Amino acid sequence: MEYKIGLIHGDGIGPEIVNEAKKVLDSVCEKYGHTFTYENLLLGGASIDATGLPLTEETVEKAKSCDAVLMGSIGGDAKTSPWYKLEPSKRPEAGLLGIRKALGLFANLRPAYLYNELRAACPLRDDIIGDQGFNLIIVRELTGGLYFGERKTEEVNGVTTAVDTLSYNENEIRRIARRAFEIARKRRKKVTEVDKANVLDSSRLWRKVTAEVAKEYPDVELENMLVDNCAMQLVRDPKQFDVILTENMFGDILSDEASMVTGSIGMLSSASLNESSFGLYEPSHGSAPDITGKNIANPIATILSAAMMLRYSLNLDQEADAVEAAVQKALSDGFRTADIYSEGMKKTSTTEMGDVIAENV
Amino acid sequence: MEYKIGLIHGDGIGPEIVNEAKKVLDSVCEKYGHTFTYENLLLGGASIDATGLPLTEETVEKAKSCDAVLMGSIGGDAKTSPWYKLEPSKRPEAGLLGIRKALGLFANLRPAYLYNELRAACPLRDDIIGDQGFNLIIVRELTGGLYFGERKTEEVNGVTTAVDTLSYNENEIRRIARRAFEIARKRRKKVTEVDKANVLDSSRLWRKVTAEVAKEYPDVELENMLVDNCAMQLVRDPKQFDVILTENMFGDILSDEASMVTGSIGMLSSASLNESSFGLYEPSHGSAPDITGKNIANPIATILSAAMMLRYSLNLDQEADAVEAAVQKALSDGFRTADIYSEGMKKTSTTEMGDVIAENV
Ligand SMILES: CC(C)[C@H](C(=O)O)[C@@H](O)C(=O)O
Ligand SMILES: CC(C)[C@H](C(=O)O)[C@@H](O)C(=O)O
Repeated sequence: MEYKIGLIHGDGIGPEIVNEAKKVLDSVCEKYGHTFTYENLLLGGASIDATGLPLTEETVEKAKSCDAVLMGSIGGDAKTSPWYKLEPSKRPEAGLLGIRKALGLFANLRPAYLYNELRAACPLRDDIIGDQGFNLIIVRELTGGLYFGERKTEEVNGVTTAVDTLSYNENEIRRIARRAFEIARKRRKKVTEVDKANVLDSSRLWRKVTAEVAKEYPDVELENMLVDNCAMQLVRDPKQFDVILTENMFGDILSDEASMVTGSIGMLSSASLNESSFGLYEPSHGSAPDITGKNIANPIATILSAAMMLRYSLNLDQEADAVEAAVQKALSDGFRTADIYSEGMKKTSTTEMGDVIAENV
Repeated sequence: MEYKIGLIHGDGIGPEIVNEAKKVLDSVCEKYGHTFTYENLLLGGASIDATGLPLTEETVEKAKSCDAVLMGSIGGDAKTSPWYKLEPSKRPEAGLLGIRKALGLFANLRPAYLYNELRAACPLRDDIIGDQGFNLIIVRELTGGLYFGERKTEEVNGVTTAVDTLSYNENEIRRIARRAFEIARKRRKKVTEVDKANVLDSSRLWRKVTAEVAKEYPDVELENMLVDNCAMQLVRDPKQFDVILTENMFGDILSDEASMVTGSIGMLSSASLNESSFGLYEPSHGSAPDITGKNIANPIATILSAAMMLRYSLNLDQEADAVEAAVQKALSDGFRTADIYSEGMKKTSTTEMGDVIAENV
């Protein structure tokens, strides 16, 4: 089959890790007889350098012409980052919020699980991890809530006041809730909806709509949890979770917490999907300016994001399985980039890791 | 000296643990020649039972006549809870939000640290905890932000929409920031201000005002951190933090995460202070309906909350030190309630623990 894939190389280590993911995709094409054509899209620093803006209409239009977009991380942490050419208020957050909205990417999926080979990197004690490890996925609403509400900063009687607005309507909640239940159905059939329903009106609406959606999925268990409690439970016993469903800001916080709980954030992928099958795929980690250009970054999160792309946007389940198995084999064979290295393993560069995994496909 | 102390016994295990804290306070009075008189105040379930409301004007007025208020936890988790007599929207959250506002308790202090004796309970690996353990305090703004913003749920063209508002003005931020810097000055002289300034206007104001306040405290280091990153760092390396300063909702989430990271939430106290020296003191944990009436709850968080009360509201530093030392001695001597029990230690009931600590004062 033929597919057109957008590539956003991104900032920092972004270009390095996207190249490795592309190697793996080339290998998939060869083995399974597909043709992928690639379109380079500008976002973040590269876009600011080229156009003065973090996101342009051109990038949005090109993205729409693709079947899916694969992205390295973007970020403006580097001292030399082009992000600094813009005022903070012009960055949000260097095009990422804009492209999510423009492409309708309301469903953010962030898996967090522990590779048995990487248990030693997990900050939790062995008895908490348990024999089976843990494996959860956060389904975060990505185009509503505080991130996209009205905001203003104004002086009232000489006192500066800043206001952000958290708004959700039932349709926004229903569509993401359905996604979460669909995903749970293919997993361990449990959805934990997370909110602050003892205080917020928006959270009470989340609880109500989620309960309605749950009736459409009688085979899936629904549990409600307060966000403060969830932040505790992720540390106390991450095994208890299967699918966590939550709004934009809570999802931001909890998914980063969950990925750190695994201890190997260099391994974690993410997908941001729209109503149909289109999606933007990116690693969960940042652009790591401190290790840029050293050929030591871990490309696995991006390679696994490419696997998610094969599965969710291109409907190539078998190929996605093959990429995931190729990553697993690289780990079993002892290949380790610096971030996940432990004694006795084979220290592996970014490009070597890409080669090994492409070879394994 | 003479002091008047309000007591809110609260729900679930609340009355049991407040009684033990009172024992310890009695012992302080005896040893140091003070007189404490107590006034019982109704809040939460007890208030709903007596008046139909979670909080009444009478409770607010009585509280104002006291030098400080000590509270057991309140909570409506029990199947038989009087909270269920009220619609969820009438509960927020069973009087707690109302009393915070009515008494102007804008500064919530929540220490999270590891007792060397209780390292085994900590969910983090030994190498992450480090030799010295960790000791941080979260300074959470408690009367602003999403919790107290305008909210509404309405139908627009047949679609239900719910809105909450996150608003802060510079004065609200300045006063809590000053508190955080004052506290840091007496500790390790580092404030980490946590926000989402790459997205929210309110967060950008937090960053700006905090930077201004920092100039008044040149001896204290200020660092800014995004909330998603902070949620990661608390798991990755809690040692890095001294004072975390943040807004209401972020503080809610992060302080619960931090207390779970210690692994012994039954040990953690909290204080909610107003502009002067008045404060409401309560354990960080909940009302634990499942163990109510069994004489097994851990009263230490409440006893340490009483110590905070001695220190912050009554200005009795020496007495506060004595209570903290008494708790430390009970631990060193091997006394353990069920929640912190480990092999070889002395299993201790709620009332025994109160006796031991009162005796140690
Ligand atoms: C960069 C930032 C705006 C973004 C977010 O908070 O959504 C990031 O933290 C993420 O989680 O993708
Ligand atoms: C009960 C609830 C409203 C409260 C809060 O979120 O403030 C509690 O979680 C706390 O942290 O004191």
